[in-house]
Amino acid sequence: MSYQTRDQLISLETELNVQYQALKAQNLKLDITRGKPSADQLSLSDHLDGFLEGNYLTADGEDTRNYGNLRGVTEVRKLGADMLNVPADNVIAAGNASLTLMYICMLHSFYYGARGSENAWSNACKAKMICPVPGYDRHFSLCENLGVEMVTVPMREAGPDMDAVEALIEDDDNIVGLWCVPKYSNPTGVVYSDETVERIAQLGKIAKPWFRVFYDNAYAVHDLSDTPVQLASLWDRCEAHGTQDSVWQFGSTSKITFAGAGVSFVAGSNDNLAELQKLLGVIIIGFDKVNQLRHAKMFPDKQALLTHMSMHAELIRPKFAAVLQALNSELAEYGSWTQADGGYFISFDTEPGLASEVVRLANEAGVKLTPAGATFPYGKDPEDRNIRIAPTLPPLPEVVKAMEVFVNCVKLATVQKKLSKLLSQN
Amino acid sequence: MSYQTRDQLISLETELNVQYQALKAQNLKLDITRGKPSADQLSLSDHLDGFLEGNYLTADGEDTRNYGNLRGVTEVRKLGADMLNVPADNVIAAGNASLTLMYICMLHSFYYGARGSENAWSNACKAKMICPVPGYDRHFSLCENLGVEMVTVPMREAGPDMDAVEALIEDDDNIVGLWCVPKYSNPTGVVYSDETVERIAQLGKIAKPWFRVFYDNAYAVHDLSDTPVQLASLWDRCEAHGTQDSVWQFGSTSKITFAGAGVSFVAGSNDNLAELQKLLGVIIIGFDKVNQLRHAKMFPDKQALLTHMSMHAELIRPKFAAVLQALNSELAEYGSWTQADGGYFISFDTEPGLASEVVRLANEAGVKLTPAGATFPYGKDPEDRNIRIAPTLPPLPEVVKAMEVFVNCVKLATVQKKLSKLLSQN
Repeated sequence: MSYQTRDQLISLETELNVQYQALKAQNLKLDITRGKPSADQLSLSDHLDGFLEGNYLTADGEDTRNYGNLRGVTEVRKLGADMLNVPADNVIAAGNASLTLMYICMLHSFYYGARGSENAWSNACKAKMICPVPGYDRHFSLCENLGVEMVTVPMREAGPDMDAVEALIEDDDNIVGLWCVPKYSNPTGVVYSDETVERIAQLGKIAKPWFRVFYDNAYAVHDLSDTPVQLASLWDRCEAHGTQDSVWQFGSTSKITFAGAGVSFVAGSNDNLAELQKLLGVIIIGFDKVNQLRHAKMFPDKQALLTHMSMHAELIRPKFAAVLQALNSELAEYGSWTQADGGYFISFDTEPGLASEVVRLANEAGVKLTPAGATFPYGKDPEDRNIRIAPTLPPLPEVVKAMEVFVNCVKLATVQKKLSKLLSQN
Repeated sequence: MSYQTRDQLISLETELNVQYQALKAQNLKLDITRGKPSADQLSLSDHLDGFLEGNYLTADGEDTRNYGNLRGVTEVRKLGADMLNVPADNVIAAGNASLTLMYICMLHSFYYGARGSENAWSNACKAKMICPVPGYDRHFSLCENLGVEMVTVPMREAGPDMDAVEALIEDDDNIVGLWCVPKYSNPTGVVYSDETVERIAQLGKIAKPWFRVFYDNAYAVHDLSDTPVQLASLWDRCEAHGTQDSVWQFGSTSKITFAGAGVSFVAGSNDNLAELQKLLGVIIIGFDKVNQLRHAKMFPDKQALLTHMSMHAELIRPKFAAVLQALNSELAEYGSWTQADGGYFISFDTEPGLASEVVRLANEAGVKLTPAGATFPYGKDPEDRNIRIAPTLPPLPEVVKAMEVFVNCVKLATVQKKLSKLLSQN
């Protein structure tokens, strides 16, 4: 914020505190913590139950009600392929959780070893994964759970700092993987540039055989703009470099149909899928093909999918706009944020050392924010700056009200800190 | 078979061979390998898709379409509790595969350790699991996958040989678990006696803290008789002995509604579930609650479930009867089998050393049988006797025809062996 005298700061703090107490007195109960779709969004898919109208057969005559077919029904694999921009033959369609697929792929690499047990991550003296920050807390939990150490690199406007990523891989054989959310990255909303995608495709040339990019394309078709930025095809770039084996790609319909009852996808090279399928075949007889068929019938082609996503965009856009409107008009001098054109989050950086205090103040005023630090490994934001705002779940008026509180808390925390610093200097 | 002279055997063999060639000439394509429900059975649940009629809320107001609630919706946990005869509070309702739940529970014990890493099975110089044989091949695959050695004990008419089980546990701290299918055991159809259940409940008193019974109650309500044998409540017996922690119980609706699109359940002590939930919470945000709600609404109480199961029984009973009719009338002198009153299998024992040959002969005549040895760990039946017959999937006339081939192949293999033995003695 711009320079202010001691007296100006004192009067500003008083004013903000009066506002804060008034907001607190409203006994609000608002929640902008998690990237959940709203009830309105979920209702866009209410016809999913019953969509089959008693016909449980796939186009090629498979009875989805019975056991079998570990790779999923043909037509839903096509849907996954359209979403992820990969060949349908290289897609396995699974259950309702891409997170579980990521875990199983990590588990496979960790304990069993890609291409043989000599490549198992558990052999490394200390397996380490590169985590662009800020990032997605559930990715970090997977690492923590398996005892994979997390090494951070900064997220830039074009994706992860690729110089840093390449240097880490070249310097340390214990680097076993890289987390990516390439489109509308969680939480910064960044879309990886063509150059970033190209450099990710080339990592397989410098990395060890056990290295894997975990490319979580969770928001592949989750555009808010009518003219969305196009993400380059990692598949094509890998094919050009012969590095298909170094990448796992993931996606799901969780934020397309029902958050808890969608279909997830994993894409990989023929050899990677064959290896994964061996493990999957021990764990499960087959995924829920009935639900896969429902989804395939609901989205017979990519256009149907995009039309459906534009209805989501209509519902989400005003909420993102409300957040950005509040930030743009009120917080230009108090922090920085990203202008996300899709996905589920807006990422706000306070001045250093203030995020926890902002979250605490907001919580006390009845507005739940994602805990400060959640977007960093081990829950520790070294600069205590980043706050993830998730505006999709509450109705618009609640988002507006929550942002009123948020703006006040950011200002109050900033002024209080400035003032206490000034007073301690005298 | 009864004594026969050399000439009698030669003439019998000729006769059987003529029959065999005639059957072979029919170019049959029959399959009685796997315990899959028939299309008729699946159709009993065709109203499942659409059953919600647009109402996705649980009785307590939870929106099943969204994320959350790792333990599953209240009403479906009640359904699982009714099936498994345990309290609903001690049930987690999950996805479509109880096999996956078993894997996760094993994985937890193996790598993470129940009640702390000092109890992890991976610490043991050689973790070993007790497998009553014949048993279920997918249980064995889980062990093999995790490198858990399988130690066999015989299945008796009242369940596993409990003397042998207790002796193994008392003698060897590396024994980490016991597989059980307590009702209509796969494949022998045995229902564990009250005494067996009582002794299983007491294992927790002599076993180490890392020991777990994996009690796969897959056929809990899958009776063929109108007056089914009652399985004693393991939960109650464990409660009486304070051994709840030593047991995991599993079940599913796979053979109640849709084989590939049902709901699975795991039941355990409060402490066991709390530990499992920690791992589950890393792997998945929540299971498919929409499908859980469908199932809960379809079976509002236990009576609705039993009525539905009696319709399955009507469809399965003639197929079991056809198998038993063929065995009773033709093979009394050629082998032994169990009279299963439910479940999905009839288990046939040839004379020693003949199972592979029978399976080979039947396959060549166009009748697929489960590979000999499949019901034993590592696919090796030490006496090469056991063949699992799964009659539910094909239509009745195909079962009848398949049994005609089966009877012929058993007889032919038996006579050929006897004859070759006799000839080699001369």
